[in-house]
Amino acid sequence: MSDDRNWTTDPSELLRVQPGFRLSEQPTDGSPGFRGDKTAGEEALADGGKRLADLQEQLFASGREGEPRSVLLVLQAMDTAGKGGIVSHVIGAMNPGGVRYAGFGKPTPEELAHDFLWRVWREVPGAGKVGVFDRSHYEDVLIGRVRERAPAEEIERRYGAINAFEKELTQSGTTVIKVMLHLGRDEQKKRLASRLERPEKYWKFNPADVDERLLWDAYQEAYQVVFDRTTSAYAPWFVVPADHKWYARIAVQQLLIRALEGLDLQWPQPDYDVEEQKCRLEQS
Amino acid sequence: MSDDRNWTTDPSELLRVQPGFRLSEQPTDGSPGFRGDKTAGEEALADGGKRLADLQEQLFASGREGEPRSVLLVLQAMDTAGKGGIVSHVIGAMNPGGVRYAGFGKPTPEELAHDFLWRVWREVPGAGKVGVFDRSHYEDVLIGRVRERAPAEEIERRYGAINAFEKELTQSGTTVIKVMLHLGRDEQKKRLASRLERPEKYWKFNPADVDERLLWDAYQEAYQVVFDRTTSAYAPWFVVPADHKWYARIAVQQLLIRALEGLDLQWPQPDYDVEEQKCRLEQS
Repeated sequence: MSDDRNWTTDPSELLRVQPGFRLSEQPTDGSPGFRGDKTAGEEALADGGKRLADLQEQLFASGREGEPRSVLLVLQAMDTAGKGGIVSHVIGAMNPGGVRYAGFGKPTPEELAHDFLWRVWREVPGAGKVGVFDRSHYEDVLIGRVRERAPAEEIERRYGAINAFEKELTQSGTTVIKVMLHLGRDEQKKRLASRLERPEKYWKFNPADVDERLLWDAYQEAYQVVFDRTTSAYAPWFVVPADHKWYARIAVQQLLIRALEGLDLQWPQPDYDVEEQKCRLEQS
Repeated sequence: MSDDRNWTTDPSELLRVQPGFRLSEQPTDGSPGFRGDKTAGEEALADGGKRLADLQEQLFASGREGEPRSVLLVLQAMDTAGKGGIVSHVIGAMNPGGVRYAGFGKPTPEELAHDFLWRVWREVPGAGKVGVFDRSHYEDVLIGRVRERAPAEEIERRYGAINAFEKELTQSGTTVIKVMLHLGRDEQKKRLASRLERPEKYWKFNPADVDERLLWDAYQEAYQVVFDRTTSAYAPWFVVPADHKWYARIAVQQLLIRALEGLDLQWPQPDYDVEEQKCRLEQS
């Protein structure tokens, strides 16, 4: 039931970070694996939304019956790459009652007074839930590294800590899907500029976005280290070309759909006698 | 911009609990105030979803700029009345990044070791967010009262505690909208029966649902006490006929839209110099 009509190659294979992966060699403006254009992509998104909602309901049902499985989507990207649109247009197709969204901003003093994983642990999805991290523990080795927010040996330590954390999650039933939306530098400039053109977009712009943009190369290098050190069989990274918003959305949607399909979900068996309950209900 | 084309009377007036309100006199099967039929209702829901999403984005933007406003929708109802459908079809139209959903089930031992409001406080929406309580602190005076889960004087005490809690919320910037989905007893029987007809619905059925159904009258009385004691100018109750799912959805959607419109939201002014930032961006 995955979307083989529209895709020539399974995006969860095509976009997966493999040994020897070099971020600097990855295009940002393609639509790899997808047969159609933007219009076809928008149709595929609508169809995929229904499929995703159905799968999520099955996951939720399994959680209610005591199955420990959950899914965690980790979203990382440079500013304006489209995380918000993924949340709205891909995650938004699922029932909010089964989704746990967590946005990670600048750490509070209380968060800084704890290990960097403390605030992250509190937001991991419970059984049956789809968790979404809008930014994540990776900020602590991205802006943390680029801006030297912690000593070098602490940054070093974190890659191993992240791997151990993600291993723990996956061993306890969580399927971890890590996505980097890969945006072109020129495309970012256009998108930031458009936020300065319309008063209803001003609030989305922050002068600090330009400060970060000036460190573009350092961030790309920090991402490369992330891929080198935290790509694992249990918690893979996917790098999704993001210059075309429509493509990034259907690609991430497919990653979720295929991960959920991989769980081979079944509707739970009743733990009561159906005929007996029909009888009780009839008399009530 | 509220939907005056489809509604003869503002549902936030029509469905609001007023002094002298008697739940037992309220129909469950009408579509009060709405001009059209089910098909018109489904169209209105789609249109309203876009309006709601826009208003929510403005609320979210205001929160990012330090405005303290938020909205809390409290959903209460007998089993199968359609809370889940409201969450999916009404709340689902908003960006998940701006929604905080909290479902309140049977309290855990840790929750029981605290005041009944403890677990509720932890889930109230922050600035700019739309919070949704799927069941709520009202369970502690509904099942709490009917099943005598606490001494009578403790149940008594809770009505005042709830009013004080909701006053505190509203005074700190939260608009509180309390909705009871009002379902007919026969309609509930049909809906429970349908869950026993299809294997993919079995998980939604729980034999305890029939136990609760057998206490129908006691629950209706407990709701009446709730309306008598916790209807306030700052945190009103709305009783929404729920035998027609399509009607309940557009009615709750309108309650949210009109509450958000009442906040008179504006896009935030930039706290930076737009032209200066354009210049910096151009050079980056």
